[in-house]
Amino acid sequence: MNKLFIIKIGGNVLDNPQALSSFLKDFASIKESKILIHGGGKIATKLGDQLGIESKYINGRRITDAQTLDVVTMVYGGLVNKQIVATLQTLNCNAMGFTGADGNLIKAVKRPVKDIDYGFVGDVKEEGVNASLLSLLLKQDIVPVFAPLTHADGSMLNTNADTIASVLSVALSKHFDVRLIFCFEKKGVLMDVNDPDSVITHLPKNRYDELLPKGIFADGILPKLENAYTAIQTGVKEVLIGEAKDLVKNTGPVTEGTLITI
Amino acid sequence: MNKLFIIKIGGNVLDNPQALSSFLKDFASIKESKILIHGGGKIATKLGDQLGIESKYINGRRITDAQTLDVVTMVYGGLVNKQIVATLQTLNCNAMGFTGADGNLIKAVKRPVKDIDYGFVGDVKEEGVNASLLSLLLKQDIVPVFAPLTHADGSMLNTNADTIASVLSVALSKHFDVRLIFCFEKKGVLMDVNDPDSVITHLPKNRYDELLPKGIFADGILPKLENAYTAIQTGVKEVLIGEAKDLVKNTGPVTEGTLITI
Repeated sequence: MNKLFIIKIGGNVLDNPQALSSFLKDFASIKESKILIHGGGKIATKLGDQLGIESKYINGRRITDAQTLDVVTMVYGGLVNKQIVATLQTLNCNAMGFTGADGNLIKAVKRPVKDIDYGFVGDVKEEGVNASLLSLLLKQDIVPVFAPLTHADGSMLNTNADTIASVLSVALSKHFDVRLIFCFEKKGVLMDVNDPDSVITHLPKNRYDELLPKGIFADGILPKLENAYTAIQTGVKEVLIGEAKDLVKNTGPVTEGTLITI
Repeated sequence: MNKLFIIKIGGNVLDNPQALSSFLKDFASIKESKILIHGGGKIATKLGDQLGIESKYINGRRITDAQTLDVVTMVYGGLVNKQIVATLQTLNCNAMGFTGADGNLIKAVKRPVKDIDYGFVGDVKEEGVNASLLSLLLKQDIVPVFAPLTHADGSMLNTNADTIASVLSVALSKHFDVRLIFCFEKKGVLMDVNDPDSVITHLPKNRYDELLPKGIFADGILPKLENAYTAIQTGVKEVLIGEAKDLVKNTGPVTEGTLITI
């Protein structure tokens, strides 16, 4: 099977034009098939503020009411996605920007209301991914760039970008040897959050299970790790968590960052 | 050659949720290959006002400064495009939303500054259209939905939707029998602007040349007619100008509206 890199970049890179420019150059230089998933960054919150729409969070998750959905559809699906695509085009990378609605590429389910009504938020599963159409596009040297938006029943849905990256990786593992790379602001998963160099280079599931009760993992990394283990347990070959500026190294045989295995 | 309908809808339909819903149902019901190009409507102006960005026009054309470019990228490329795509998906129409940057589908030239600096505005020609990739997508039963945005040199560019429809039609006429349909708020080109039923059912170029100096054509229709004749003179089989609610009839053998021929 051919190699496929599925790469997620977070808000900290998007919010820094120089870091983004450098990251996109590295991304464009990858010769193998590749997919980019981007988060939203602070631009949506800033636009919401300007429009007098308050950002609401419960347990660190944004509550997406109808007005907020319009804002994230504009910012993630419009501004951020198209600026990335236009930049990649100048780097000889034939990027095509998508939300999950486009080509029905990622169909979701609106999150059911239990204790909390998250609003227009999508939950996605492997079955919702149109892997055959994505494979066809990849074979044409198209580079899909996903905004963190899916759809269901005629509505766009705000969706966690890490989860999208993970679900895409699982669905495409039937067609490609997938390496899923989560890029964030640290060198990898840290043994000591106060020591940026204390990267755990290899974190198999049994070691994770040992370390988890000790509370060493920062809150921000936990959803990433959960997504990573879900991916690796359902067919994804390799998952890496590393720093955005190490992307090129992390696509090679010897990697920086934290390697996640079963 | 297979038939292809290239259909442009304007702002008046986009600004009216009921009219838009009805139009999209009609559009989805077309069995042949089809492409939709949408304008922007009043939403971009409204958002610009809310953000304190003034809309500037010279000779009826919007001047697109950097802030305005961000607004139209968000509204046209994000909000409007994705709402249309999500709605079409519920109608069993596998829509995929695009700007010209996506897949390098429409490469433009930033309009050169002569007397007026239009800002981030794109001029497009047939050569800028990636017709082979569009043909491939159409063969996969993908329905491209274009926002009125193109790109050049890493920047998005605000671009007239009528022109995009016309240029796409010319480029795709080598692969398909194209009927280009401009949908607007009137039944067709009118002999008398005050009589909505005075539709000119057939307007060959020589009759247009006769009528033009008499000043019977309203200002709004002139760019559409210019685009129509350019299209028909460069390979497009049929061009129609008609009302959005007549779309289904206008895709059949007996049409309403104004038929443009050489």
